[in-house]
Amino acid sequence: MLIYRAPVAAPPVLLVFAHPYPDRSRANRRLLRAVQGLPGLELRSLYDLYPGFDIDVPAEQTALRRAYAVVWQHPMYWYSAPSLLKHWFDKVLARGFAYGQGGTALSGKRCLWVVTTGGDAAAFAEQGMHRRPLEEFSPVIEQTALFCGMHWEPPLVLHGAHRVADSVLDDAAQQYRARLEQLLAAAQSAGRTTAGAA
Amino acid sequence: MLIYRAPVAAPPVLLVFAHPYPDRSRANRRLLRAVQGLPGLELRSLYDLYPGFDIDVPAEQTALRRAYAVVWQHPMYWYSAPSLLKHWFDKVLARGFAYGQGGTALSGKRCLWVVTTGGDAAAFAEQGMHRRPLEEFSPVIEQTALFCGMHWEPPLVLHGAHRVADSVLDDAAQQYRARLEQLLAAAQSAGRTTAGAA
Repeated sequence: MLIYRAPVAAPPVLLVFAHPYPDRSRANRRLLRAVQGLPGLELRSLYDLYPGFDIDVPAEQTALRRAYAVVWQHPMYWYSAPSLLKHWFDKVLARGFAYGQGGTALSGKRCLWVVTTGGDAAAFAEQGMHRRPLEEFSPVIEQTALFCGMHWEPPLVLHGAHRVADSVLDDAAQQYRARLEQLLAAAQSAGRTTAGAA
Repeated sequence: MLIYRAPVAAPPVLLVFAHPYPDRSRANRRLLRAVQGLPGLELRSLYDLYPGFDIDVPAEQTALRRAYAVVWQHPMYWYSAPSLLKHWFDKVLARGFAYGQGGTALSGKRCLWVVTTGGDAAAFAEQGMHRRPLEEFSPVIEQTALFCGMHWEPPLVLHGAHRVADSVLDDAAQQYRARLEQLLAAAQSAGRTTAGAA
């Protein structure tokens, strides 16, 4: 027997992009350009959407609910997320939505952190300008994802964003695109599986 | 010979307080009450001053310049500072002021971090709800201070802010007051030394 199954839209991969000064950005702009327009990718650029920090929490939560995976892309500001992304964490990842009783909206979703730093890799070392490897600053972001029940993907880090050679930037951009293509392919499979089970 | 020396005002200790929901606060309110009004303490309550995130950068920088020491007091939000304090870091601790060429305004000032957590101490452990000791989340804040050339004081941490017994809270409040009195006394001495040198 032949069963006709209407094509099912795969859940999108949600890219939450946070750059306070995109015009001054070299690396983040290049990275973003490498993935923008990939089918299934939903981009939310926080500083474009909310220049006054007035985050639309229900809209953000709706976008998160439908996503297969979540990407946080930003330049590092004071060893962490720029303030609007921190505000997004504080407001959107609310109790009862992202954690606590009934807070399972993000449970099992994959989370990819894409971060650029001004300092080069050598700056992130005991003898460097930032005194510690980047891994000692990342628990704040990583545990935010884990506390919401998300699966933490190996982060994509680009050091020396202002100075790296174009070829290094191109490599990073290609890597980023490949990582997102993997996530989007997985989202496709997840969509089919869900449809099959329905 | 008798030299008359006019009394010299000591530089203040600047308390930057950041609580998004002070009405819901138990611990931070109690801690704040324990130190408010101490002579020489200058309080800037960020969520009262800037409910719309429109930080007056020159005013904040002026307050920092005249301070002997800086206190950052806040409840922990997503393993870090609440977003308005993060915004304060991003905007106020600017290149040319706090770091980089000519950025020596904070150099040598003492910095005290006063933080409360909702989870109790046991939650901050490998087997606990937050998976890591608090010390693995603090480098983000500590290195922010160090990068500005500040001296990092041993932080004052109060766990389980919603649930601890009143007596524990009282102890923490007294400890906090004692720590600030020490800083204020040191500020007095610094004021005299500066006056003597003038």
